[in-house]
Amino acid sequence: MAESAAPLLAALEAIVGAANLLTADADVAPYVTDWRNRYHGRARAVVRPGTTAEVAAIVRCCAEHAVPIVPQGGNTGLCGGATPGAGGHEVVVSLTRLNRVRAVDATNATLTVEAGATLASVQQAAGDAGLLFPLSLAAEGSCAIGGNLATNAGGTAVLRFGNARELVLGLEVVLADGRVWEGLRRLRKDNTGYDLKQLFLGSEGTLGIITAAVLKLFPRPRSSATAFAALATVDGAVALLAVLRQALGDRLTGFELISTECIALTRNKFPALPDPVPGHPWYALVQADDSSADSPLAAQLESALGEAIERGVASDAAVARSEAQAADLWALREHIPEAQRLTGGNIKHDISLPVSAIPAFLAEAQAELDAAFPGMRYVTFGHLGDGNLHYNLSPPAGTTVAAASERADRIVYDLVARFGGSFSAEHGIGQLKRAELTRYKPAVEIELMRQIKRAFDPHGLLNPGKIL
Amino acid sequence: MAESAAPLLAALEAIVGAANLLTADADVAPYVTDWRNRYHGRARAVVRPGTTAEVAAIVRCCAEHAVPIVPQGGNTGLCGGATPGAGGHEVVVSLTRLNRVRAVDATNATLTVEAGATLASVQQAAGDAGLLFPLSLAAEGSCAIGGNLATNAGGTAVLRFGNARELVLGLEVVLADGRVWEGLRRLRKDNTGYDLKQLFLGSEGTLGIITAAVLKLFPRPRSSATAFAALATVDGAVALLAVLRQALGDRLTGFELISTECIALTRNKFPALPDPVPGHPWYALVQADDSSADSPLAAQLESALGEAIERGVASDAAVARSEAQAADLWALREHIPEAQRLTGGNIKHDISLPVSAIPAFLAEAQAELDAAFPGMRYVTFGHLGDGNLHYNLSPPAGTTVAAASERADRIVYDLVARFGGSFSAEHGIGQLKRAELTRYKPAVEIELMRQIKRAFDPHGLLNPGKIL
Repeated sequence: MAESAAPLLAALEAIVGAANLLTADADVAPYVTDWRNRYHGRARAVVRPGTTAEVAAIVRCCAEHAVPIVPQGGNTGLCGGATPGAGGHEVVVSLTRLNRVRAVDATNATLTVEAGATLASVQQAAGDAGLLFPLSLAAEGSCAIGGNLATNAGGTAVLRFGNARELVLGLEVVLADGRVWEGLRRLRKDNTGYDLKQLFLGSEGTLGIITAAVLKLFPRPRSSATAFAALATVDGAVALLAVLRQALGDRLTGFELISTECIALTRNKFPALPDPVPGHPWYALVQADDSSADSPLAAQLESALGEAIERGVASDAAVARSEAQAADLWALREHIPEAQRLTGGNIKHDISLPVSAIPAFLAEAQAELDAAFPGMRYVTFGHLGDGNLHYNLSPPAGTTVAAASERADRIVYDLVARFGGSFSAEHGIGQLKRAELTRYKPAVEIELMRQIKRAFDPHGLLNPGKIL
Repeated sequence: MAESAAPLLAALEAIVGAANLLTADADVAPYVTDWRNRYHGRARAVVRPGTTAEVAAIVRCCAEHAVPIVPQGGNTGLCGGATPGAGGHEVVVSLTRLNRVRAVDATNATLTVEAGATLASVQQAAGDAGLLFPLSLAAEGSCAIGGNLATNAGGTAVLRFGNARELVLGLEVVLADGRVWEGLRRLRKDNTGYDLKQLFLGSEGTLGIITAAVLKLFPRPRSSATAFAALATVDGAVALLAVLRQALGDRLTGFELISTECIALTRNKFPALPDPVPGHPWYALVQADDSSADSPLAAQLESALGEAIERGVASDAAVARSEAQAADLWALREHIPEAQRLTGGNIKHDISLPVSAIPAFLAEAQAELDAAFPGMRYVTFGHLGDGNLHYNLSPPAGTTVAAASERADRIVYDLVARFGGSFSAEHGIGQLKRAELTRYKPAVEIELMRQIKRAFDPHGLLNPGKIL
């Protein structure tokens, strides 16, 4: 910090031009605060490269000056993984200008895109080629595909298509010393040594900066069906999932659990949203898609739900009769987080469990939390098909989120660990969950991670203070 | 080597018992020669542990004595990856006694199994639970699941289900120093740091010894349809693949390209096998599966094929009318390698390419090989849906395989590299393709692999001389 910043800034300006080097506080501000307004960092500068060569030059330059780098995409992360620390000595590398679709190969069903492209623009490019890129999540209009890959994003289509990791065939990565690993393969099979791309995927910019990727595309759905099933218990929801998986196979693309409390909360803030099957404790929002235009999908879904009701697995169900009805059902699901935010503070948990453990987990968690915080309210929803719950708690009147968080987190995460689950299913670690990582991961595993970090970034210049 | 083997052997015997420590030449012989009888190694001993704790103790013991280890499953690999070197100082750790199914969780659709279980026994355990484990390949009766994972096996269902890597949720691994990484997670989403299991998958025992795994299960198919389509060109096969993917979506589970030469060669040695649509230059064996029992799958496949013929994409097609007919079509495909072996020596290439590049690759490869070896015969088949060809060459009369191999390999692999393909799609590197790795991989990539190897196995004790 004693060293003058001038030579570094001059060198960076020579790489990206004055217009793409931001140093004034007002210009830098949007890049140093996270999406949830939880982390407020400082940065020596923000650089906005437009090519992979510029990214590489920036990294070499920062390495020469021993200045740490924070890679950033759309800055929509939920764990502070793209926000610089408070020291003010880091350089933020914003990749949003590096956003070209380099190639679409419809025959190979692949798309090559640069890291800064928004997820929505990737979906659009796939659609323009008559194909589907299935990754989908709330921030898709502003999040960058590079950030999706660096955090191994999840979203609403994981049940069929897997997490972001499973949608990648190749990567181009700028390494910690500024060299470029050219791994943009377009192959579905390639057993030639260690699968390096897997290390960069989900490493939150701590091992290298992803600058481009080859993504898998899929046939576009041409028939869809959406239903809302009512259930007496979470066990019923788990059983219904199994029934529908067998009946629909891979055409079951979404299975979202929603508690009755979520519906009440959401319709309280958004009264125009539907209440499709009132009066039941649990619901499942079911989505099915088929690439065939003349698929009997809706009839099959309806028949499977009818059978489930007959057998007592589900209590009732409503099948959307139009695209507008289907969109309303999804809007109900998607407005839960916003309704909860408008209702008041809450303690969020992005957890995963073996699907078979979810009913027992929910029962035990509620018992322990009720004992610790009488009057606690539970806003439970999530991707049941993936074992991923957004288990959000609203503390009782008179108890602040700040006062309750630490104890509630410990109850929830300890129980998650006991049931073989994860304290971060799809949002990652960033700054937010570093302490949980140390607490819940086996020591051997953390040591292996540190060895990898040392091997790839021996001087600790890439996104310091994140994950490890 | 000057050191006496006695203390090591006594220590190993104390771990596994005398019955599971093999040192006599006749006992050791089956473990030191590979499946294709191409590599003939020597070993100080073969140890057969029955538990993970025994594997860990063996590794600690070998590490103390600075003795390298060759992990081995069913010993069915095709690249010599499980065969010890010629020096005679290595210990083979055979995992076939470590073969229990530890748990089946039908609700979570997961199975936890030890590394030495055969692939067939894993398929059976999944079937017993009413579910499917989709990995399937010729050696499934004798290959071990641990070897399948250590080599990231491919097989016939990759089009829908991916390679072995994509079927794994968790691993238990004995590290180079004998510590055990307990990573047997049963979660479909878990974003808590680097995904370590990905490093062990496909690393051929050079980074750790996989002792158990959690595998993903799927709904069992209850409707199936199989067809044999005739095509004028490889372009036609690529176009038919796109038509069927759109029509059937994920229910298209197999799409195997077969040249007319393959049919002639195979029926010459196995005359009882069918010739379903005689007289066309190329064929595609098409498999479709649906988890629903009353699916109109066969009608949909027939209709899609009919449309493809009308549009001139395919020339003709035969749909199997019975399970026996379907089995005969698959037998035709599966007997190609054996028929070729019985016909004479051949030069094998397990390559992959972007699907869109396959027609041009085949044309150019044949032109170059014809020029170099007039009279060369081409036995081309493989998993077209994955871009994976088994591109096997029978040299012309008067030219031996030994004489032609080096030049033919160079022509094929140089061209594969030019088209952005891989010189090893599903069989791995082992001993066989180490030189190709150095030749075709970017230097940066090899350096990163070496850094990982050094971090995980600093003394080079795990499967030396393989991959790197």
